[in-house]
Amino acid sequence: MILHPSFDIGNSGHLTIDGLDAVELAERFGTPAIIISENRIREMCRMYRRAFSENFGKGSAPVYAGKALCFKRLYEIMAEEEMLADCVSSGELATAFAAGYPMENIFFHGNNKTDTDLEYALKLGVGHIVVDGVDELLVLDEIAERAEKKQKILLRITPGIDPHTHKKIITGNVDSKFGSAIVTGDAERIVRLALTLENVELCGFHCHVGSQLFDIDTFRDAADIMLRFIRDMRDDCSFEAPVLNLGGGFGVRYTEDDPEIDYAENVRLLADEVKKMCQDLGLKLPDIHMEPGRSVVAAAGATLYTCGSVKEIEGFRNYVSVDGGMTDNPRYTLYQSKYTVLNASHAGEEADFECTLAGRCCESGDLLAEGIKIATPERGDIIAVLVTGAYNYSMASNYNRIPRPPVVMIKDGEPYVAVRRETFEDIISLDN
Amino acid sequence: MILHPSFDIGNSGHLTIDGLDAVELAERFGTPAIIISENRIREMCRMYRRAFSENFGKGSAPVYAGKALCFKRLYEIMAEEEMLADCVSSGELATAFAAGYPMENIFFHGNNKTDTDLEYALKLGVGHIVVDGVDELLVLDEIAERAEKKQKILLRITPGIDPHTHKKIITGNVDSKFGSAIVTGDAERIVRLALTLENVELCGFHCHVGSQLFDIDTFRDAADIMLRFIRDMRDDCSFEAPVLNLGGGFGVRYTEDDPEIDYAENVRLLADEVKKMCQDLGLKLPDIHMEPGRSVVAAAGATLYTCGSVKEIEGFRNYVSVDGGMTDNPRYTLYQSKYTVLNASHAGEEADFECTLAGRCCESGDLLAEGIKIATPERGDIIAVLVTGAYNYSMASNYNRIPRPPVVMIKDGEPYVAVRRETFEDIISLDN
Repeated sequence: MILHPSFDIGNSGHLTIDGLDAVELAERFGTPAIIISENRIREMCRMYRRAFSENFGKGSAPVYAGKALCFKRLYEIMAEEEMLADCVSSGELATAFAAGYPMENIFFHGNNKTDTDLEYALKLGVGHIVVDGVDELLVLDEIAERAEKKQKILLRITPGIDPHTHKKIITGNVDSKFGSAIVTGDAERIVRLALTLENVELCGFHCHVGSQLFDIDTFRDAADIMLRFIRDMRDDCSFEAPVLNLGGGFGVRYTEDDPEIDYAENVRLLADEVKKMCQDLGLKLPDIHMEPGRSVVAAAGATLYTCGSVKEIEGFRNYVSVDGGMTDNPRYTLYQSKYTVLNASHAGEEADFECTLAGRCCESGDLLAEGIKIATPERGDIIAVLVTGAYNYSMASNYNRIPRPPVVMIKDGEPYVAVRRETFEDIISLDN
Repeated sequence: MILHPSFDIGNSGHLTIDGLDAVELAERFGTPAIIISENRIREMCRMYRRAFSENFGKGSAPVYAGKALCFKRLYEIMAEEEMLADCVSSGELATAFAAGYPMENIFFHGNNKTDTDLEYALKLGVGHIVVDGVDELLVLDEIAERAEKKQKILLRITPGIDPHTHKKIITGNVDSKFGSAIVTGDAERIVRLALTLENVELCGFHCHVGSQLFDIDTFRDAADIMLRFIRDMRDDCSFEAPVLNLGGGFGVRYTEDDPEIDYAENVRLLADEVKKMCQDLGLKLPDIHMEPGRSVVAAAGATLYTCGSVKEIEGFRNYVSVDGGMTDNPRYTLYQSKYTVLNASHAGEEADFECTLAGRCCESGDLLAEGIKIATPERGDIIAVLVTGAYNYSMASNYNRIPRPPVVMIKDGEPYVAVRRETFEDIISLDN
């Protein structure tokens, strides 16, 4: 096993993904290609569902955050696994709908939902809308009135927590484009407003305190603040929130330097704390939701590339260029995110070639990793970047008019194309 | 005029683009939308062509760097303006070909061209391939032999210059994924190798020293190094390069803090220096190419958004959220690039509302600008980001399943859709 159960080295000395030879997968499906273990995703869903219902109680559940990885087949899997889902745009709603996913199980997010988005969500019968602010709340009330619906909502609240992670993925801070802050009084004001409106039904609160968190400290702090807020709203506004969504954020092990995480144990620990807090505050335990995305799909995926050139610059460094890059994985360019890289064709050999893994874009910053060691590669070798299930395909672009790779899923050892490779014709089809 | 000739304020108090009311354009074509002045692009092409032929001589010319903005209509314009073109991928080649652009005028770039890319380029009859390194050179020679062609090439050379600009857009450094360095001896070795190969015809050298450069200093330094290299190769290998391509990089004025640039004057100044250097080195003046991309298209474009929410967080800051963001313009997220932002609906009013312009993605880092001042906005106002013609549409993604905006071009005061708005169906069409 390399980092996660899906990755190993086969008898051939090649990397294997769910037991399948990565070099053969590359040959069959071409490169670049994103390979995803369906079984691994299903295991994660089941683990989370069990952890929530056993520790928080029957009404508590994980909500899959689709922005991590989103296409029709994935919603089919989420439907089969009876996962709730968090959508952040009409495009995600449209995808879920096209997959036959039950729309009443969706929580619809976004700091800037347009009128069209809200109308579309109501038309599709989205279960809950997570209202971000006053502008949206007032518009939604009007739209719901016109649609003759009473729309269930959560309110997005910013508890004001700095989770000490990367700045760009801090969202629980007061200074955020998302939600209404407790400390400024905005949160209370929007609760009072929501309770006066006739066409929305306030069902609870949502907060999100960060991503890639490796322990429960930040979630516990968020729960503490949010439960006190629930108590205050009960006492001041006679509204006791039946649902509290603590957002996303469990971390994923990208490299051996990252800790191993027992997600179920984390949920159990958090549940213990939350139950104790509720007792202390004299609150009935609300249904607890959380929104795992990255931790459901990241470790199920790997990206396979073909090495195109190996450039040893004497006195400087070595560059290994592959046939993908920031167009299919912009995370190194955006956040300097670290990944585990292997020469999949020689995974069993010593990784002693220190290099920078460069993408194929006409941009110096298009790198996938720096200072890594892999078995000495040559043009034609298959290079694998592991743990790319989350925020790779979903963030892919056509920069340099490079088509997006396919997503090949493996179910019970059988690979199939879940998202086909984009063609030049696809890209040009938008041009008049 | 605001920053550039295409932008102004009309009698209505709205922003105008090439004289057309931005609020009316937003109403007619929807938001977000990228509006591009065709006339402005044509003016820039003519200015560059004239500047090169008048100052460097008849064989010298600008080569449009398509990665800045690339779709069929743009190649039609480039063909009509008789511009050479720089393509960096098979996708760009396919686009140029679909537009009927003359393939012999193309220079094909890339640090990692696959065998398939090279075969495709030869099949289409691409004029020159800019060979990045030894791996590619050897493969190209074989492919050209099989195709029974003698392929014209330039060699990409890294002169080893730090242009003191943003790290990610430094490409002339020795430590680069691109090209062969002079100081390590790799450049000379690849020249000697190229001269022994029977199926390629070495026509000259290419270098690229950076982007967003506001004066000629870096180009002059690059020319100095490259001309000495040309002399050395003439003396040592009996090859006097007839073409020298000095790459891209003239800057663009994004905000009032950036200097105004007289591109034609810059070309003239550079030509004076280059001619003097050639004289001093006893060299015949080679045909000089440069690859303007950003400076041809950036100032021709603006992006129109609709304001969705205005959030004033007391004691912190104000967030104005719009219906686009990092999906159509990732440059702030990637490089903290500064832009000029206006409330297009109230462009004539005092810009005294200090705010952060936030995108609609479910990601805290999805911002378009911070610390800007615009006329106080409300939900429904049209917000314009100016100078978005380059590296916006070309870098756009479907993150959060958000469809890409259309590109609306204006020709002689008449707007038309050059690239249609992407639909949910387009996005889902890749899903099996």
